Amino acid sequence: MKFSTNFIKTKREVSSEIESVNGKLLTKAGYIHQEMAGAYTFLPLGVRVLSKIENIVRKHMDEIASEMLMTSLHPKSLWETTKRIDSVDVLFKASGANKPSIERNSAEYILAPTHEDMVTPLMQESVLSYKDLPQYVYQIQTKFRNEARAKSGIMRGREFRMKDLYSFNKSEEDLKAFYEVAKKKYVDIFNELGIGADTFLTLASGGDFTKNYSHEFQLLLDSGEDIIYLDRANKIAYNKEINTPEDAKKLGIDFSKLEEIRASEIGNIFPLGTKYSDAFDFNYIDVDGSKKKVWMGSYGIGTSRIMGVIVEKFHDDKGIIWPAQIAPFNYHLISICKDKDSEVFQKANELYEKLQSEGKEVLWDDRFGVNPGEKFNDADLIGIPVRLVISERTLKEGKIEKKMRNSENTEMVSIESDQF
Amino acid sequence: MKFSTNFIKTKREVSSEIESVNGKLLTKAGYIHQEMAGAYTFLPLGVRVLSKIENIVRKHMDEIASEMLMTSLHPKSLWETTKRIDSVDVLFKASGANKPSIERNSAEYILAPTHEDMVTPLMQESVLSYKDLPQYVYQIQTKFRNEARAKSGIMRGREFRMKDLYSFNKSEEDLKAFYEVAKKKYVDIFNELGIGADTFLTLASGGDFTKNYSHEFQLLLDSGEDIIYLDRANKIAYNKEINTPEDAKKLGIDFSKLEEIRASEIGNIFPLGTKYSDAFDFNYIDVDGSKKKVWMGSYGIGTSRIMGVIVEKFHDDKGIIWPAQIAPFNYHLISICKDKDSEVFQKANELYEKLQSEGKEVLWDDRFGVNPGEKFNDADLIGIPVRLVISERTLKEGKIEKKMRNSENTEMVSIESDQF
Repeated sequence: MKFSTNFIKTKREVSSEIESVNGKLLTKAGYIHQEMAGAYTFLPLGVRVLSKIENIVRKHMDEIASEMLMTSLHPKSLWETTKRIDSVDVLFKASGANKPSIERNSAEYILAPTHEDMVTPLMQESVLSYKDLPQYVYQIQTKFRNEARAKSGIMRGREFRMKDLYSFNKSEEDLKAFYEVAKKKYVDIFNELGIGADTFLTLASGGDFTKNYSHEFQLLLDSGEDIIYLDRANKIAYNKEINTPEDAKKLGIDFSKLEEIRASEIGNIFPLGTKYSDAFDFNYIDVDGSKKKVWMGSYGIGTSRIMGVIVEKFHDDKGIIWPAQIAPFNYHLISICKDKDSEVFQKANELYEKLQSEGKEVLWDDRFGVNPGEKFNDADLIGIPVRLVISERTLKEGKIEKKMRNSENTEMVSIESDQF
Repeated sequence: MKFSTNFIKTKREVSSEIESVNGKLLTKAGYIHQEMAGAYTFLPLGVRVLSKIENIVRKHMDEIASEMLMTSLHPKSLWETTKRIDSVDVLFKASGANKPSIERNSAEYILAPTHEDMVTPLMQESVLSYKDLPQYVYQIQTKFRNEARAKSGIMRGREFRMKDLYSFNKSEEDLKAFYEVAKKKYVDIFNELGIGADTFLTLASGGDFTKNYSHEFQLLLDSGEDIIYLDRANKIAYNKEINTPEDAKKLGIDFSKLEEIRASEIGNIFPLGTKYSDAFDFNYIDVDGSKKKVWMGSYGIGTSRIMGVIVEKFHDDKGIIWPAQIAPFNYHLISICKDKDSEVFQKANELYEKLQSEGKEVLWDDRFGVNPGEKFNDADLIGIPVRLVISERTLKEGKIEKKMRNSENTEMVSIESDQF
């Protein structure tokens, strides 16, 4: 992709309204554009990162579930059935915006923050007997939450992207087994995203498995909103709801050995039990002819939130430092020359075409009239893993300057090299 | 993908509320699930078709524009600036759903049916001079329209998927040139979707290029909502707004030579001129230092609508007949056997693995206790191009039965064959 023919614009200044590090850096580097508090457009660079994150999540989810895409508009009745219309305090409603005189359809809808209330009756229509179970479905979709405050960039927004998986099992035992499968997939996902080493499975609330029990995946992060209590050796943690020596004792943990540390939630999993199948009276006929409740679980990952968290985790004072697997491009190519007739431009073009023909993704800063310092600053800000510079100086030696974003060192590589 | 481990459920009956052919067939075949009038969930089979359509659109759009993802929630002020808050009669608004006592954020938003009102000020922030133009951006996204009636299945919904492209040029001349580029890309897209031959560029309204002028792409369709006047030889058409002999004369057309025919709109393109840059006072500084208005265009394709239209176009009384390039799978494999220990099941499993290792997509109806007739009916309903059947009967001859969905003939192919 070329700077000259695509919508890629970095900014020197960012509105003081944007307070978080991820909001500031992603805005300056041209990944996102704030439309209002808590709602960000993903610009071309941002769509590339978000798609890479979502495709990693999708790849692992496809191994255990079927992808679907539910609607964002929900009939209000679903949320009345579960009584969540009263208990969920971040709900948006939607309705016709026109004057009564031209009213076309006066129904009120809920704009969904999550889909238990829709997926349960959907499954109920098709799942009648034990032969129809288990079922595992997921989606990757835009969600809506009317957050009171929305100051965390894309880490917590009123409109955001999320993967949500729902499991339907015959029994608590089957649910428990799938819960462990989902846990492992989450570990695989965070490993592949480059944040596995600092991510800890965190018991978010204790108690009975399906009553007051859930897990979070927490990424250690100085700017994280949460405090967790970490048992580093066993790679497990507890959140602040079970942070007293007494709580710890109940769980058989020596509280004095836990490390108090800041972290940020990047995923959560809930054994829902029969909460929703009770609400909708969702039963199946078991092999012995008896009627039984379906056991459910739900499993979330905020994909846009992950993007924000990764920026909070991997940056320096110059800009973002993307893990390679989710960087918008593999290479940031800079040509330093006056016009298209120059040898530098020709060689840069050849390299751009060659790398792309090898399946590499290249962002080429092919702008004229922009000084080298500005191009280098933009490269640091944008944070692509490898920077390649071609100029008259490097060409004199038949070389290209190569620099990794996460290193201060540059090296000169032969332009004929097959290895960048 | 296996029937036994994925959420794939066909239905014999469909609610009488669902009136359209596409709504009925897609529901029966397990592609979509109606959540309420005009809002459909895409089930696993449906997501596959929708993704294939959207990826074809994306591939062609990437050649002329940069992909972004704007927000669905819009500040009301944007729609007040363009005055469209009063003129667009299908607007949804969104706001907090909670009781005033726990109100968290009382702002009202517009839930966007289209994004001219957002993309114009977004571009205005970054486009300052002639050096910043042209810009071409697009997105593929869920859109919301409060339709009065929503009875056309996924052809016209209150929540639907759409690709929208926006162009920003320095002059009317540049806009005209890009308008032609976009037209050609649309033709490429419809050709690749398998509906090019019956798709006609249709002048939707005449007059000045940027005042009362737009084009639709209309697909000939017996169940189409529109009537167009077709000049088949020149592959161009006119819609009913310019359907009188006088109108035709003005355009230099012999009205008597036009064919009146039913069709369905599958894309539309509008030269917006300076309508939105006037509303936002969006100017750029030209090379001579003078201030000029930016010239815009917008270009839409409803990707979920296309899915519906294709079902209306390609089906018979047994079910859907997908064009190969957007079918959910390449092969529908049916095993007819009693259990997993049977030779039939083993051979089917080998073929399933082999085809997938070759990069082919296979839906395997591996269910037990479902009679062959039911499996054949499901295959016809689902509409995958190639059906393969393995049974004791076919195995006796060392063969597999192969049948194309669009043909009545079956043929026996050696199980060792490399060509299915």
